[in-house]
Amino acid sequence: MKRLAVLTSGGDAPGMNAAVRAAVRRAAFHGLQIFGVYHGYDGLIRGDIKEMTLGSVGDIIHRGGTTLYTARSEEFRTEAGQQKAVEQLNQHEIDGLIVIGGDGSFRGAQKLTEKGFPTIGVPGTIDNDIPCTDFTIGFDTALNTIVEAIDKIRDTATSHERTYIIEVMGRDAGDLALWAGLAAGAETVIIPEADHDINDIVERLHAGSSRGKKHSIIIVAEGCGSAASFADQIKEKTGWETRVTVLGHIQRGGSPTAFDRMLASRMGAAAVDLLLEGKKDRMVAIQNNQIVDFDFNEALQQRHELDLSIYDLARSLSI
Amino acid sequence: MKRLAVLTSGGDAPGMNAAVRAAVRRAAFHGLQIFGVYHGYDGLIRGDIKEMTLGSVGDIIHRGGTTLYTARSEEFRTEAGQQKAVEQLNQHEIDGLIVIGGDGSFRGAQKLTEKGFPTIGVPGTIDNDIPCTDFTIGFDTALNTIVEAIDKIRDTATSHERTYIIEVMGRDAGDLALWAGLAAGAETVIIPEADHDINDIVERLHAGSSRGKKHSIIIVAEGCGSAASFADQIKEKTGWETRVTVLGHIQRGGSPTAFDRMLASRMGAAAVDLLLEGKKDRMVAIQNNQIVDFDFNEALQQRHELDLSIYDLARSLSI
Amino acid sequence: MKRLAVLTSGGDAPGMNAAVRAAVRRAAFHGLQIFGVYHGYDGLIRGDIKEMTLGSVGDIIHRGGTTLYTARSEEFRTEAGQQKAVEQLNQHEIDGLIVIGGDGSFRGAQKLTEKGFPTIGVPGTIDNDIPCTDFTIGFDTALNTIVEAIDKIRDTATSHERTYIIEVMGRDAGDLALWAGLAAGAETVIIPEADHDINDIVERLHAGSSRGKKHSIIIVAEGCGSAASFADQIKEKTGWETRVTVLGHIQRGGSPTAFDRMLASRMGAAAVDLLLEGKKDRMVAIQNNQIVDFDFNEALQQRHELDLSIYDLARSLSI
Amino acid sequence: MKRLAVLTSGGDAPGMNAAVRAAVRRAAFHGLQIFGVYHGYDGLIRGDIKEMTLGSVGDIIHRGGTTLYTARSEEFRTEAGQQKAVEQLNQHEIDGLIVIGGDGSFRGAQKLTEKGFPTIGVPGTIDNDIPCTDFTIGFDTALNTIVEAIDKIRDTATSHERTYIIEVMGRDAGDLALWAGLAAGAETVIIPEADHDINDIVERLHAGSSRGKKHSIIIVAEGCGSAASFADQIKEKTGWETRVTVLGHIQRGGSPTAFDRMLASRMGAAAVDLLLEGKKDRMVAIQNNQIVDFDFNEALQQRHELDLSIYDLARSLSI
Repeated sequence: MKRLAVLTSGGDAPGMNAAVRAAVRRAAFHGLQIFGVYHGYDGLIRGDIKEMTLGSVGDIIHRGGTTLYTARSEEFRTEAGQQKAVEQLNQHEIDGLIVIGGDGSFRGAQKLTEKGFPTIGVPGTIDNDIPCTDFTIGFDTALNTIVEAIDKIRDTATSHERTYIIEVMGRDAGDLALWAGLAAGAETVIIPEADHDINDIVERLHAGSSRGKKHSIIIVAEGCGSAASFADQIKEKTGWETRVTVLGHIQRGGSPTAFDRMLASRMGAAAVDLLLEGKKDRMVAIQNNQIVDFDFNEALQQRHELDLSIYDLARSLSI
Repeated sequence: MKRLAVLTSGGDAPGMNAAVRAAVRRAAFHGLQIFGVYHGYDGLIRGDIKEMTLGSVGDIIHRGGTTLYTARSEEFRTEAGQQKAVEQLNQHEIDGLIVIGGDGSFRGAQKLTEKGFPTIGVPGTIDNDIPCTDFTIGFDTALNTIVEAIDKIRDTATSHERTYIIEVMGRDAGDLALWAGLAAGAETVIIPEADHDINDIVERLHAGSSRGKKHSIIIVAEGCGSAASFADQIKEKTGWETRVTVLGHIQRGGSPTAFDRMLASRMGAAAVDLLLEGKKDRMVAIQNNQIVDFDFNEALQQRHELDLSIYDLARSLSI
Repeated sequence: MKRLAVLTSGGDAPGMNAAVRAAVRRAAFHGLQIFGVYHGYDGLIRGDIKEMTLGSVGDIIHRGGTTLYTARSEEFRTEAGQQKAVEQLNQHEIDGLIVIGGDGSFRGAQKLTEKGFPTIGVPGTIDNDIPCTDFTIGFDTALNTIVEAIDKIRDTATSHERTYIIEVMGRDAGDLALWAGLAAGAETVIIPEADHDINDIVERLHAGSSRGKKHSIIIVAEGCGSAASFADQIKEKTGWETRVTVLGHIQRGGSPTAFDRMLASRMGAAAVDLLLEGKKDRMVAIQNNQIVDFDFNEALQQRHELDLSIYDLARSLSI
Repeated sequence: MKRLAVLTSGGDAPGMNAAVRAAVRRAAFHGLQIFGVYHGYDGLIRGDIKEMTLGSVGDIIHRGGTTLYTARSEEFRTEAGQQKAVEQLNQHEIDGLIVIGGDGSFRGAQKLTEKGFPTIGVPGTIDNDIPCTDFTIGFDTALNTIVEAIDKIRDTATSHERTYIIEVMGRDAGDLALWAGLAAGAETVIIPEADHDINDIVERLHAGSSRGKKHSIIIVAEGCGSAASFADQIKEKTGWETRVTVLGHIQRGGSPTAFDRMLASRMGAAAVDLLLEGKKDRMVAIQNNQIVDFDFNEALQQRHELDLSIYDLARSLSI
């Protein structure tokens, strides 16, 4: 294990740069060479690979996005594409690859390992929807971006005494919506992991209103449908006009929080250490504040679990 | 002039609280009593009026929204409603009213002056669309909120090498879109005050693309139509998929910037001074960094002008 | 257990308001009455106690500081003062007290329990120096405040190619310094838990300089001495001028991060639940992302431990 | 005028990068070549000069500091150094130089013009202490950084009911202190342009205290002496303990505000336009929201003026 490579893949997440930086610096610490693969698997196939040094990762720990870029690759989904990828890695005499991304990116990494090429995955996605890890890189930043946005919307919700419905990202996971709802003191949170019933939502609005509360914030996880559809249902049931905001792509960007930079630094370094120890086909994870690792097969067969006691807590605090 | 009142009306804007605070403290400085009218003209009609003291405005200078609330009032559009408003003011022995809001709010204030009740308007709106004043309270904060959002979206636009179309507020005015576009280095800005042509927009995208620029940010003022419609036109012309974000209500909230707090403090205090000098039916404004004032009639007949040299500058810098 | 009370004590920490809010709302959820004790133990002795309702904690979840205020109390250190405190609680027919603060505040709570009055502690301090809990309320916010400040200083350090020494809070604990140093990519971190040697620090500066690195950031935990004294030592050893910044009281304030609001919400609610279950003389804690609780005696005899593997990681990444 | 160059000099200020970007892009718009001089006048003497293209200034508009670096140069103070600088410019066939910095940097530019080399100055300094311009690049950002810091300190000042004295930058100018004091609602502002008297300061503290105000924020411009010396004087007069914070180097960094990016974009472009028009030995300025320009001699003989009506306003609002 003398020459490593690192790529970012899938949706970008704040902290990916910090993870790349940690991998590069940890490799240098161990006296290894390390290469950056640009534009994800697509760039890997095309051989868009350059050596990285300490200078390559100067002044990036605090930057959002990924300086290695990310891209979709239809070709990599094919056997032929995967073969090309392995050939590129071999041609560059690379001994191990670190893939920073979500579960789709990990499945790609597995394909390479199946072809005999050692890979390690680092969970980077704002959605926090990867099994076996308590947190993914980018989740804490996206969460704070959402909470700050809701704080701003609350200013205007309070001033106008209206109900606002805010749609947040998370794919099929409700983590962003639930945590943001609790942290921002939202009156109602709608997530895929818990049943929701429009009558219950309306009842909560009425209960608040009867206690003199004239504004209300409802958070909808994108996995439950659009905020607009909930606005329509509320209007139908109550006649009330609500305001809808879809937070959109601001949730992906921004300078990573301290937590995400820490997590990325620990995970990026751990990925290098694992390759050095001769491990492969594994993902790095954090459990109980400790960096651990799991076999891809084992991990990806599981489901990411949301702690539903948080949901119950949020409901009890937003009476 | 012994007893004044202040209300906020129309869409809320960051800095309204700083303006209310300045009016209350300036009144206290002059030894006057001052009352807060809650919920705008609607509250005025209902007599929702309470005396304010130094303590009433403690710890609000940095808060978004308006602690006096704001509301629409259909009744105030009627002669009878306006009459009730004057009666409430007289009943509370109030000698002059300060109205913080946009042009609609100023027209309401004029109605009261026509009925013999002295009013002074303070321009508070994020849209910067009031004639005769270089800036309105809330514009600078909304502008920075938009620019920070675009900075975040640029992280992800750069990482994915895609084109993002971002729709910003401003009603019929392009100030927010133009200033934000220049400040955020957007490739294209679409505003009501300048002709826009989908072919020109597409040409700029192609020009950037041919120079190797793979991502692009387009800002659309809401007065020009929806970001989604521009996305459709671009797709039709080029086949390119773009991503759309409508920034929405986050633009109204947030802690006011230093500039907005300054402006609000100067304007709120000036409104009290004008009433003390026996002036009425006038709006406070800032021109060339100086606080000035204009007759409502004179001001509201004019059009807010955008400095189009800024537009030309933005185009020249985003080649 | 029908009537509870809550107070904040010691240095304020962002998230204390979120904890108070959670306690009040959780009490309401359980149908209990709850009272706020203002100005810490000093207010308790003086009977500065008022009933709190859902409305008392509206719009405070995102505010820094503590709306219950905090104060030192010499009198409470005396037997007589503690007796008065218990009398006030009894007079108000309060059945249990929640104390949000640091270890000194917990020792105060113990005194009350020794006198037969049930208390529960909630760890609120930016220093993260309480045993048995992975995190304290306020730590994550202070950490992000520090990291944002270092990011700003790095701008100027890079532009001027100078070395900056930044002194951060933490009392005897190095958590803030270490985590901030790792998250901000500082070249050197000086903490009480690890030996530091001026020769090693100077060697690292020289090593960076010889690799072409002309600026450097050194973080000093206040428990290791002043930044100024390190600047003097470096000057003596190398002749280099460095710049010193003592971050100071900005580290205590600011709107709490999502993480701190979550933690505070969970802990504040858990404190109410514990009292309801008849528990007392215990502190709430978070371990491995789960809310747990410990006997005060047991907890306060232990030492807060810093994970020194993080220190080693930081050193390996800042070569 | 075919080949221009640009350098940054003196203390760095947020927005310098936006000004460099605007100069480079405006030059490209006009079909000119433009070169970056690295490390200020020191780099100029050493010939540290590289051609810049559109790509050189990609993704820098929002970055603090200066990517051209800045440095002190003792050699440039000498006749010989200035001669070398002109030789380097001639050797690189450069026709005009844009200098972004403060008054010291402008005096350097004048020296070059005296030797026959055309220069244009762009005012970049957080201190806002340049004559003839209403604002300098960086002032608005530094002001917002200070105001956000005071907002944080106010959280803790309010919670602990103590008086905090905060020292801010500005060299001999009180602009940062005064504007920040007004925008943050400080109780007292001490600036070089207005007399201050410790008895008056103490009287204001007592007046607030007697009205029930238990915390107070005092802002001291660095040009008036250290915050610590005021703390000593207050202690001597009243026996009160106050807390001191010196904001320090965080004031120089951070992503520029929208206002500073606008100002920098307008000024950087204007500098190119002036050189193209054959002008030299002049500084760009903003007056009444319009970009204008002045002869260096004329400008630097004047004094920067602070609008003292703002000081009176601040005092009237902080009764």
